[in-house]
Amino acid sequence: MDLWQLTASEAGARMADGTLSSEAYTRACLARILEREPAVKAWAHLDAEGALSQARACDREPRRSPLHGLPVGLKDVIRTKDLPTTFNSPIYAGHHANEDAHSVAVLRALGAVVLGKTQTLEFACGGQFPQTCNPWDLSRTPGGSSSGSGAAVADGMVPLALGTQTGGSTIRPAAFCGVYGMKPTWGRIPFDGIKSFAPHLDTVGLFARSVDDLRLLLHAYALHDLPAPVVPGWRELRLGICRTPHWDEAEPQAHSAFEATLGRLRGAGVSLIELPWAPEFADINRWQDDIMQDGGRSAFWPEMLLEPDRLHADFKAKLQNHLGLTPERMRSSLDSVARCRMAFEQSMTDVDAVLGLSAPGVAPLGLQTQGMATFNRLWTALQVPCITMPALWSVEGLPMGLQLTHRRYEDHRLLEVAASLAPLLDLRKNPWN
Amino acid sequence: MDLWQLTASEAGARMADGTLSSEAYTRACLARILEREPAVKAWAHLDAEGALSQARACDREPRRSPLHGLPVGLKDVIRTKDLPTTFNSPIYAGHHANEDAHSVAVLRALGAVVLGKTQTLEFACGGQFPQTCNPWDLSRTPGGSSSGSGAAVADGMVPLALGTQTGGSTIRPAAFCGVYGMKPTWGRIPFDGIKSFAPHLDTVGLFARSVDDLRLLLHAYALHDLPAPVVPGWRELRLGICRTPHWDEAEPQAHSAFEATLGRLRGAGVSLIELPWAPEFADINRWQDDIMQDGGRSAFWPEMLLEPDRLHADFKAKLQNHLGLTPERMRSSLDSVARCRMAFEQSMTDVDAVLGLSAPGVAPLGLQTQGMATFNRLWTALQVPCITMPALWSVEGLPMGLQLTHRRYEDHRLLEVAASLAPLLDLRKNPWN
Repeated sequence: MDLWQLTASEAGARMADGTLSSEAYTRACLARILEREPAVKAWAHLDAEGALSQARACDREPRRSPLHGLPVGLKDVIRTKDLPTTFNSPIYAGHHANEDAHSVAVLRALGAVVLGKTQTLEFACGGQFPQTCNPWDLSRTPGGSSSGSGAAVADGMVPLALGTQTGGSTIRPAAFCGVYGMKPTWGRIPFDGIKSFAPHLDTVGLFARSVDDLRLLLHAYALHDLPAPVVPGWRELRLGICRTPHWDEAEPQAHSAFEATLGRLRGAGVSLIELPWAPEFADINRWQDDIMQDGGRSAFWPEMLLEPDRLHADFKAKLQNHLGLTPERMRSSLDSVARCRMAFEQSMTDVDAVLGLSAPGVAPLGLQTQGMATFNRLWTALQVPCITMPALWSVEGLPMGLQLTHRRYEDHRLLEVAASLAPLLDLRKNPWN
Repeated sequence: MDLWQLTASEAGARMADGTLSSEAYTRACLARILEREPAVKAWAHLDAEGALSQARACDREPRRSPLHGLPVGLKDVIRTKDLPTTFNSPIYAGHHANEDAHSVAVLRALGAVVLGKTQTLEFACGGQFPQTCNPWDLSRTPGGSSSGSGAAVADGMVPLALGTQTGGSTIRPAAFCGVYGMKPTWGRIPFDGIKSFAPHLDTVGLFARSVDDLRLLLHAYALHDLPAPVVPGWRELRLGICRTPHWDEAEPQAHSAFEATLGRLRGAGVSLIELPWAPEFADINRWQDDIMQDGGRSAFWPEMLLEPDRLHADFKAKLQNHLGLTPERMRSSLDSVARCRMAFEQSMTDVDAVLGLSAPGVAPLGLQTQGMATFNRLWTALQVPCITMPALWSVEGLPMGLQLTHRRYEDHRLLEVAASLAPLLDLRKNPWN
């Protein structure tokens, strides 16, 4: 087994017992990137020398945290003080911020090694697509908008990465790439230092290859509860099944993989409870879209004023209020979502988490799409935590993702439910095998 | 009349007809600052030469917008690419960002002249107080946390300024300083580039000396509706009266000034409707506090990791969850606020705006207080737009502020209601008279 195949937790354990250096692990990740990047194109900016220099500094220092010495990738809408931050926008070509975003400052303070910036859909919103390919099938999108973070973690280039989610931009690429992804409760990791798109929705997202690695990040951001939530083993779990609106828009193979997984869970003795999904939730994706498009009415205003010729028509349409959003409609959409949020959380008081689809199926063919966020938008609007686990696979061996959700602020509990279910649901494979 | 006494709209009109240069107006503001700053201490960072150079550049260019050539002050939690951004924190002494916050980039793109950074409570949250004095009485606080923006606009140092509001940090200092202040609907001016404190609440705030000047800023941020809302003259207005929770905590002189104003409005023929304030709203300020303190559990985490010795105990307490907030309590507080929001907006469907107090009375004595946000927290939690007008004055001639509120997204309508009422309610005086 090559070093780059280690998860962050595995590598961290070896670093803690002195059998692995940060430099060696970082060097292995860089070698993997050197080999695979021409095919996968996951990175917007890499600084191999800078990363190795950070790693060597880590090796000289006492360990600051379990993240000490571990490499991370950062979606290129997240500002960094050393590497460029360009949002995949021609307006920001060569741009350098001189401050780390909150989410980066925390990781760096805990000793993480910033490996580079990962590819993104322009402004995590629209416009220019990245050229990143799905490591499972290079002719397919890895999903987006956190395309590079999903692909790089899946392909063994880096064990951990940050993304963002405003529609489905973390859970979808994690699902399409067969890795773990987590969208924490809205607002719990400050968005400070990240280009915003729609403030009601914008959330920092986490990518990793194991539940243990997600836990590393959750603790890094101090999102764990004290005392830790008590989560029973999978035999005692009660899971809600949530066939969300647009369920029939998923591919038949997603449906059949989902039902097969339910059968497997039932067979193992897990209690499954069908949650009613009230008819008044039917329009929630449309309300989410109103809220998201409304964000776009403000988000790109400075770029419109300063660089209209280099601003993609996608953003101009949003600035021109192409949906014709009115104050009444915005209040109605926001309040409808708020009512759904209360109803959803009420509906799941008797279960330990809720299971659903992460994506409508496998990653679509081509790079001028990022797939649909149909099964993500509603959860983003609800601001609840979501984790996608690599539990559903197509017959041809492509990942689809199973989504677990919970109430707001139950990030830690949701993670421990995922950990409890991992013996049954972690069917992660690696594209390099 | 000295040039620095002109409002932004007045100065802008003279610039448009060629009778005033940006340089002359900027120079007049700088001269006023030179004279008054030793007493008022409104500024954290000033760059007179830089401002004059921007002004001269404006004078050479065609006018880009109605803001062209007009000086603005920026609260020092808002990042700027030229001036330092130090958050009144010893951790950031001498710190320079190299990017403008969204809210600054817009003003600069429209031709505004960035005069300097105004004093703030540390991180707009707690810790170290600014030394800024109230221009009406130097022994009193100007209010906070946007202390410098309120004092500088009131004292004729700059016609326009930006602040922020998470509790009462814009409306309160504007009220205590006798100027106009506006907290727009949450999220409509992106917070991108401003140090965040509590993401559900953080809002960019506007300071000015007239309704016309507030309108300049509203249009600059493209918050105006098309077509513009039709607002009748004051004779046809119907105003709701909202005696919010904690009404009895206001000073007797605030109560009597408020009642006298109602009498004056009634006498002028304005229809006044008492809005019921449901008993279930009683705890809204406590819910707002939960949401605000919860933000503090994350906001200062990088500083805690990097510079614990220079982080004030105030922030450490928040990081340690001094309120013992649980997931259940957070959901309860957030949902309670969401229900109040719907109920409030429903209650005012028949009125053109809602009147209430901006502050519990006049600015308190001393600089180790910023006064209470009792009459602001609820509106911040509701995310609705608020404007404070200089309509209430104490018998000794100190300003108190009358607050107008509306439904979310009715920023433009609220502003035009304030404009319609200005002939009756604009009792603005200047501290220099």
